[in-house]
Amino acid sequence: MATLLVPHDVPPPNVDAEAIKAAFRGWGTDEKAIVAVLGYRNAGQRRQIRIAYEQLFEEDLVKRFESELSGHLERAVYRWILDPEDRDAVLAHVALRKPTEDFAVLVEFSCIYSPEEFLAVRRAYQHRYKRSLEEDVAANTHDEFRKLLVGLVSAYRYNGGEIDARLAKSEAEILERAVKDKAFNHEDVIRILTTRSKAQLIATFNHYKDANGISISKQLGQDRAANEFTEALKTVIRCINDPIKYYEKVVRNAIKKVGKSDEDALTRVVVTRAEKDLRQIKEAYHKRNSVTLDDAVSKETSGDYKHFILALLGNKAE
Amino acid sequence: MATLLVPHDVPPPNVDAEAIKAAFRGWGTDEKAIVAVLGYRNAGQRRQIRIAYEQLFEEDLVKRFESELSGHLERAVYRWILDPEDRDAVLAHVALRKPTEDFAVLVEFSCIYSPEEFLAVRRAYQHRYKRSLEEDVAANTHDEFRKLLVGLVSAYRYNGGEIDARLAKSEAEILERAVKDKAFNHEDVIRILTTRSKAQLIATFNHYKDANGISISKQLGQDRAANEFTEALKTVIRCINDPIKYYEKVVRNAIKKVGKSDEDALTRVVVTRAEKDLRQIKEAYHKRNSVTLDDAVSKETSGDYKHFILALLGNKAE
Repeated sequence: MATLLVPHDVPPPNVDAEAIKAAFRGWGTDEKAIVAVLGYRNAGQRRQIRIAYEQLFEEDLVKRFESELSGHLERAVYRWILDPEDRDAVLAHVALRKPTEDFAVLVEFSCIYSPEEFLAVRRAYQHRYKRSLEEDVAANTHDEFRKLLVGLVSAYRYNGGEIDARLAKSEAEILERAVKDKAFNHEDVIRILTTRSKAQLIATFNHYKDANGISISKQLGQDRAANEFTEALKTVIRCINDPIKYYEKVVRNAIKKVGKSDEDALTRVVVTRAEKDLRQIKEAYHKRNSVTLDDAVSKETSGDYKHFILALLGNKAE
Repeated sequence: MATLLVPHDVPPPNVDAEAIKAAFRGWGTDEKAIVAVLGYRNAGQRRQIRIAYEQLFEEDLVKRFESELSGHLERAVYRWILDPEDRDAVLAHVALRKPTEDFAVLVEFSCIYSPEEFLAVRRAYQHRYKRSLEEDVAANTHDEFRKLLVGLVSAYRYNGGEIDARLAKSEAEILERAVKDKAFNHEDVIRILTTRSKAQLIATFNHYKDANGISISKQLGQDRAANEFTEALKTVIRCINDPIKYYEKVVRNAIKKVGKSDEDALTRVVVTRAEKDLRQIKEAYHKRNSVTLDDAVSKETSGDYKHFILALLGNKAE
C-alpha cells in the first residue's frame, strides 16, 4: 500500500502551478511551499502540474527546479516530478555512469517491477537516450557482471503463477551444485535467474532451502569465496524472493550511512515506492529496527529534504 | 507491399463462416471453397470469421480444420487462421522442438520484425505456453548458440534512426578482429549483434565493407572455419541488412527443395509476409531467378496447397 497522502480536494493543476511559481519569486526559494504541493500529489497530478506550468509560464518546470533547488532536495524533487518510468530511466542511467556501477538499481527494476512496468522503463530509456538499456548495460559492464545484468535487463519474464515443480527441483539442484563448486558465474545459474518467472524462481528457492536447510541467499552470504558478484546474485535472489524485506534493508543501510551521503538510496526507495508499497516497507522497518522510519528519517536527515521525504512517507504538512 | 487480395465487397463474417461450414459438409472437404474464402481475407477479417464460426456452430474453427484438412494445406491454413503474433509464437515453438533447432525462424522474428512486433510475439508465446520465449530458448540451446539466440530473443532494440558514426567504426573494428582471429563466438560480437539498433548495425556493417572491400556476411561465408554457428551469424547479419533479399533466398532454397519437403519454409515466408512486403519479395525473386515466384510455385507445388499459396501471392481464384 501507498504512503502518499493526496487531499480529497486537490486544487486544479493551474492553481498548483501558480503556487509553485510563487515559491520561486522574491529572494531565495520557498522550498516549504514546493514541498507542500508536490509532496501531496500523485504521478498523474504531477504530470498535469508540469503541463499547466509550461502553458502558463512558458518555461520547463523541471529545468526551473534545477536552478531553484540544490543538494539532496533538488535530486529528490527531480526524481519525483518526472513520470515514474522516465524517472526510472534516469536512475538506471545515473547508475550506469557511476565509476563503480550501482548494479542494485538495475536489479531492483528488473527483478521487482512487473514485466510490463519494467518494459515501460526500457521504453522510456530509449526515448530519452536514443539507445536501448541493454546496449548501455552491455557496453558498461564486463565478464560475469555483463552476462548477469544484460540477461536481467533484457528479460521479459512470464508473469503467470503456474509452477513446474519438477523443474523447480532440478534447477534447485543446478544451483546447489554451482554453490558447492563455487561456480557462481556458471551459465546455467545466470540462465535460471534471468529467464525464469518469479513464481517459478520462488519455488526453486524453496526447494533449495528444503533440501539444504538454509536459503540460497544466506548460503551465498556465508561463502568464503563471496565477492562483488555473489553479492549481485544475492541481490537478485532477495529482490525476487521478498521485495519488502529487500527495500527495508536498503533503507536501513541508507539511514545508517546518512551524513555519509546515502540519501540517494533513501530517496530512490521513497520516490519509487511511495505510490506502491512504502507502507509495508515502513512496517517492516519498524519491526526490524524498533523505531519508526519516520522517526529515523527525522533524526538522521535535515532541512527541506527531510520535510519532503517525511511528506512522501505519509506525514501531513506541518 | 502486401500481395493479399481482399475484395472490395467482403461478405460479413457470418456469411464467410457459413461458407466454410458448408465446405465441411458431405463427403470429403471442399478445400477449394475454403481457399476461396480464407485466401482473400486479412488478419482482422480472419479473426472475425473465427469468432462468427464459434458463435454460429459452437465449435472451434481451428480445431475443426485440424480434422478436415491434412498435409501441407493443413499446416498452411493453421498458420494463416491464427492471429499473426499467435501464429509466430507457434512457429517459434515448433522451431524449438525440432531435433536440430531451426534457429532461422528465431533470427527472422528477432532481427526483421520491429521491436514492438516482436514483443507482441513474445507476449503471445507466454500466453500460449505459460513460459517466456527466452527461457525456452535458453533451456533448448547450448554454448555459443544459447548466448546468441537468448540475446536475440531478449532484445528490445532501440528503433530510432540515429547513428553514432564513431561507434560504428569502433565496433566494425571489433567485428573485423573477431573474424581475423576466428573468434566468432566472442562476447563482444554477440553483444553488438544482439543489442545495437538496426540502423546502428547497418552503419557498422557498411564501415566493415568500406574497410575490408567485402561485406562481413560474404567474408563469413568464405571462411574455412565456417560452421553452423557462423551460418547463424550470417543469418543475423542478412536479416538486419536486407530482409527482402534474405526472404528471397529462403524462398529460392525452399522451392529448389520442394518435393524434398521444404514447403514449411515456403509457407512460413508466404503467411508471415503476405500482408507486409511479399510483393517486394516476389520482385526480388523474379529478378534473381528470371522466373516469377507464381510460376515457380505453380510448377513445384501441387493440389489445394498450391492454390492456397498462389492466392496469398496475390492471384485471383480460378
